[in-house]
Amino acid sequence: SKSYNITLLPGDGIGPEVISVAKNALQLVASLEGFKIAFEEMPMGGAALDVVGVPLPDETLNSAKKSDATLLGAIGGYKWDNNEKHLKPETGLLQLREGLQVFANLRPATVLPQLVDASTLKKEVAEGVDLMVVRELTGGIYFGKPRGFGTNENGQEIGFNTEVYAAYEIDRIARIAFETARKRRGKLCSVDKANVLEASMLWRKRVTAIASEYPDVELSHMYVDNAAMQLVRNPKQFDTIVTNNIFGDILSDEASMITGSIGMLPSASLGEKGPGLFEPIHGSAPDIAGQDKANPLATMLSAAMLLKYGLCEEKAAQRIEAAVLDTLNRGFRTGDIHSAGQKLVGCKEMGEEVLKSI
Amino acid sequence: SKSYNITLLPGDGIGPEVISVAKNALQLVASLEGFKIAFEEMPMGGAALDVVGVPLPDETLNSAKKSDATLLGAIGGYKWDNNEKHLKPETGLLQLREGLQVFANLRPATVLPQLVDASTLKKEVAEGVDLMVVRELTGGIYFGKPRGFGTNENGQEIGFNTEVYAAYEIDRIARIAFETARKRRGKLCSVDKANVLEASMLWRKRVTAIASEYPDVELSHMYVDNAAMQLVRNPKQFDTIVTNNIFGDILSDEASMITGSIGMLPSASLGEKGPGLFEPIHGSAPDIAGQDKANPLATMLSAAMLLKYGLCEEKAAQRIEAAVLDTLNRGFRTGDIHSAGQKLVGCKEMGEEVLKSI
Ligand SMILES: CC(C)[C@H](C(=O)O)[C@@H](O)C(=O)O
Ligand SMILES: CC(C)[C@H](C(=O)O)[C@@H](O)C(=O)O
Repeated sequence: SKSYNITLLPGDGIGPEVISVAKNALQLVASLEGFKIAFEEMPMGGAALDVVGVPLPDETLNSAKKSDATLLGAIGGYKWDNNEKHLKPETGLLQLREGLQVFANLRPATVLPQLVDASTLKKEVAEGVDLMVVRELTGGIYFGKPRGFGTNENGQEIGFNTEVYAAYEIDRIARIAFETARKRRGKLCSVDKANVLEASMLWRKRVTAIASEYPDVELSHMYVDNAAMQLVRNPKQFDTIVTNNIFGDILSDEASMITGSIGMLPSASLGEKGPGLFEPIHGSAPDIAGQDKANPLATMLSAAMLLKYGLCEEKAAQRIEAAVLDTLNRGFRTGDIHSAGQKLVGCKEMGEEVLKSI
Repeated sequence: SKSYNITLLPGDGIGPEVISVAKNALQLVASLEGFKIAFEEMPMGGAALDVVGVPLPDETLNSAKKSDATLLGAIGGYKWDNNEKHLKPETGLLQLREGLQVFANLRPATVLPQLVDASTLKKEVAEGVDLMVVRELTGGIYFGKPRGFGTNENGQEIGFNTEVYAAYEIDRIARIAFETARKRRGKLCSVDKANVLEASMLWRKRVTAIASEYPDVELSHMYVDNAAMQLVRNPKQFDTIVTNNIFGDILSDEASMITGSIGMLPSASLGEKGPGLFEPIHGSAPDIAGQDKANPLATMLSAAMLLKYGLCEEKAAQRIEAAVLDTLNRGFRTGDIHSAGQKLVGCKEMGEEVLKSI
């Protein structure tokens, strides 16, 4: 029978709690669908800094590269916030993305009927929101060179970064976005700042060029400031959004908060070939770490994305997705999505209920 | 008696309609407060492109430089959207900001009790929102060099921009922000991406250094992706926000949409010395241009900011602000903020009602 290797990176804060729950779910659906998973758990982020002194040890990156897919919990915490750049947990995450060459970050933002009240938006604005942000993840201002510190002609201290995109980087993320839109409702909105930035002008030009390969997908363009407004005004207008690394960072977080339940949202980061990286979009929540309060559903849904996009085990993925919905329908809620009349549970118990539903 | 010169830049779309109404209000409060205003109306944006062939004619910039303050309507429209960069209306606006050296852009976002229903946010989340975004306006990625197009080592076409800040640029905007917070509720949140970008690390370092001059103001720091979320989750947590040019573009637009009434929001752009630039934050709305449908209140409130920040005519400013509230209390609404039971009026009639209230 088939067998997969999965690297688990629990990371920091609530990371270990949510990963342990998701691991159980992966194991269960694997046995039900008749395949095997071998897990390798590796240190990363603050956890790695404390033990090995770097945020992404070579062994961790190698394990991720050799495995069929990687599931990450969360990284970061107050403890390491004032570290120098190369010793920040976040730097480990950027090195991991770069090392795995996962340039396409898929971030769904869906308002489930069960959780529509969790949104701060009015019910009629929030209900039915179902959008996907496709964020470029290994280019742009996050990685552009030159970058650093220096002095200008007047001897003043400066800090600088470079926003740069090459045509091929835009083309490949555009194709992923068009493919994604095609499998959804056939609408793609490309977000840029082409009225000001040259990097965005090239972005718009290339996305428009690639559109000719996808005549069945309806392409529109929007400036990033307007997109930030439209997500608040009427998020339902969006199906698939494609944008650069930094705009994607901002807009996908905004979109996730519009759902009101960021404890529910998974993400997938994919490369041209090679293993993908899957992680909940929430952070390490150090304030509730170790208290069995975390919502493990985002990580479970990330495990479902891992099965679907990473291993092509669509049926196993659907088992997890269906079980998460069933568990919500049975009234179980962690603190972040709890409201009156529902059963408040901790991270572990939520995990067990999902296993029952599976 | 005192006399001021004001440059009016009606611009494109609904610009001329809202400027004409605001001009009447300025004239009326001037006569009531016993000072004189001489207006000079100049072409800018698409209107200037059509007549003179450039988006910011020298005569227009010179008029703005020589005057005591400039009031701008709005610029841009479909007609010029595909123009080359140096022939875009937006480029004229950037040249104007740079030419006037107005590095500090103040963008209030306030939810008026009369208009709380206009927000897409739940009433309890929206009501009482009263924040100010202080956006750096003449630096960062908007103006950083090098910028442009080229080819990389593999012969691939690239587009690039530079995000760069010098210490003095951060220091001066930080001081404006601390002063602003001091006059408000004494809380300043500096927004950056210091976990990834060197330009943001310098930003955070300098803002923190300047904080020692303002021990009475409470300073906090937030990453831009989190800020985009927190504006949706709980906008009331913010008093004053200070951030760079591009993050300020995105977050101030998001904040304005949270109020639900961007037709109500003014802005002021100020330099170290020299005349300021005042404009509504809404765009040129070409779809309703010339139909007497535009909401002139944002421009009237921008005129009030002009009186207050530009001419130090605080009393005259208060007259306009009070009249706008009074007109809303009397139930007059343009289409964008209209709801059942209120009097729907056009741009001109709204202007006349505000004059009556003054
Ligand atoms: C932790 C940080 C470096 C990261 C990013 O900015 O990409 C995070 O905000 C995210 O969106 O995954
Ligand atoms: C028109 C455009 C260049 C401008 C900007 O990005 O600054 C606008 O969006 C604004 O915020 O005033």
